[in-house]
Amino acid sequence: MPILLFMESKLKKYSVAVLGATGVVGREMVKILEERNFPVQNLKLLATEKSTGVFINFQGEQIKVEKVTTQSFENVDIALFSAGKEASIKFAPAAVKNNAVVIDNSSAFRMKNNVPLIIPEVNPGEIKKHNGIIANPNCSTIQLVIALKPIYDFVGIKRIIVSTYQSVSGTGKQAINELREQSQAFLNKDKIVKKVYPHQIAFNILPHIDIFLDNGYTKEEIKMINETRKILSDNSLKITAFAARVPVFYGHAESVYIETDEYISIPGIKQLLTDFPGVKVIDDPSRFLYPLPIMSENEDDILVGRIRKDLAEENGINMWIIGNNVRKGAALNAVQIAELLILEEK
Amino acid sequence: MPILLFMESKLKKYSVAVLGATGVVGREMVKILEERNFPVQNLKLLATEKSTGVFINFQGEQIKVEKVTTQSFENVDIALFSAGKEASIKFAPAAVKNNAVVIDNSSAFRMKNNVPLIIPEVNPGEIKKHNGIIANPNCSTIQLVIALKPIYDFVGIKRIIVSTYQSVSGTGKQAINELREQSQAFLNKDKIVKKVYPHQIAFNILPHIDIFLDNGYTKEEIKMINETRKILSDNSLKITAFAARVPVFYGHAESVYIETDEYISIPGIKQLLTDFPGVKVIDDPSRFLYPLPIMSENEDDILVGRIRKDLAEENGINMWIIGNNVRKGAALNAVQIAELLILEEK
Repeated sequence: MPILLFMESKLKKYSVAVLGATGVVGREMVKILEERNFPVQNLKLLATEKSTGVFINFQGEQIKVEKVTTQSFENVDIALFSAGKEASIKFAPAAVKNNAVVIDNSSAFRMKNNVPLIIPEVNPGEIKKHNGIIANPNCSTIQLVIALKPIYDFVGIKRIIVSTYQSVSGTGKQAINELREQSQAFLNKDKIVKKVYPHQIAFNILPHIDIFLDNGYTKEEIKMINETRKILSDNSLKITAFAARVPVFYGHAESVYIETDEYISIPGIKQLLTDFPGVKVIDDPSRFLYPLPIMSENEDDILVGRIRKDLAEENGINMWIIGNNVRKGAALNAVQIAELLILEEK
Repeated sequence: MPILLFMESKLKKYSVAVLGATGVVGREMVKILEERNFPVQNLKLLATEKSTGVFINFQGEQIKVEKVTTQSFENVDIALFSAGKEASIKFAPAAVKNNAVVIDNSSAFRMKNNVPLIIPEVNPGEIKKHNGIIANPNCSTIQLVIALKPIYDFVGIKRIIVSTYQSVSGTGKQAINELREQSQAFLNKDKIVKKVYPHQIAFNILPHIDIFLDNGYTKEEIKMINETRKILSDNSLKITAFAARVPVFYGHAESVYIETDEYISIPGIKQLLTDFPGVKVIDDPSRFLYPLPIMSENEDDILVGRIRKDLAEENGINMWIIGNNVRKGAALNAVQIAELLILEEK
């Protein structure tokens, strides 16, 4: 990882706020700030709904979650936002006005020209261009781009075709409960109750993530296309995406086909990926070793396996990519952006 | 459907055997022979293991399942085989020697030059070339090829890239039980017991179906590639496949990207698919209508939706294909081949 661990007490410390602190990603952000010894002077936990009496542990201290207002960001240096697009649009200007830097996990600002979209291992230099807001890419984009970046840099990529297998934790707490409750109801032959998804998710697959656009794509698919191009600064990259929700709790999977500009061998790709920060190759089918969603549980690296040549297309390569959508796909990447930010400030 | 229903008693009747009658596909074959009024003179139910005292209902009669021997096929006209590759290799010669025609659901003979590989809606004419054995394609191949055939015929297809989401019923009874038991154990926080699959299948995805080959592909993936080329009689077709097992009981799903030789509009594709026998278009995202694995339960047609243009490649098209892997993917297609066979005989 290109990131220092901030262990030394003489370093500057920062006032940090987490908006959406009671959500799946927000709680993970707090955990990761502690795990990575982020130099926190003061931690403010915020939520859009008044969660009366909710406390979250940080470094042994119980911190009360407060309802966010436009006044919440006074004296905040870094604000990690993960309360959805509407909350980001509503509260980011107030945070920026108070001189906080917002690291936003929603899709609100990702495609704005003056907002850098950062994966620290991929395009750290872009962070300098920020104007108070830095965007965290979509979970499916992060794991795709980090695994393709070393190949992109070494031999070029002209074509990407990706099909996702995304877990319900990407939707949030209610979806995790829905998968659990529907699965139990199905096994008991009870009635399946649908609250979060328009169709049964237990023992089923929904070819539908986020809203549908007029061109027949979902917004999730278009995010993957547009964000990948922006992060790689390559608008001529041909990329298409299909996104599906699967009955898995944690970990997103992707079946990825790429066409490179120049020839590269499979051992060459494995070496590139092994050497790249944040990526781990698990690819020994003879021992039934390949990435699985359940492997991502305590995993910060993106896992890549099933790497093989297309038998019909000379520079075609297939691979299977798994990422922890809550950590590297969201909370961890956001905290890594914050680490990069304070490194840049020095 | 190009197949007649044989309602009239004056038609010739046939002595039919089902090998693998106690399996998921075998039981479905018996059901479908009855449903479609196949002109059965006499039905012989066979299994490789002696299933003492197992009876299966056919047309109101309880038929005892017998242990198969090389003598079992005397006076049998049509033998439907679905007891795995080894049983097919062992018993098909005996059946053919007894002048039975074998319709084989295993992969044993599919790629043999003198064995036609038939989807009745796609390549019925090939059946004339049989020498006693007709092969039923792999479940994932059938649903892919039937949905692509009308497009292939109308504008040509030069490239197919497919990622599958395959249900556990494709593995058999034990796998259905394993998904049920592991899911319950997971929800109860009990130990997950693995018997059929090398890894937990409940709330997980395995990028692994059938055995691994030296080139990094699984046999399932290679089957899809080779069988598609054989059925379409097109060895220059560029096709690559990735196959994954998902925690779904019934119904296989496929995310499919194709590149056509000539331009075709999306409404044009929908019309072609709607007009093609055995295919149904379900594609109205504004009403959350798209194919789902659970829709395939009582469905003989292959369901196609999420049909859309690739935004980067002029003749690129994405779609989502669902099929009932036990019926059209196996048992139904086999019985349809038998119907075609007796039609050809007249």
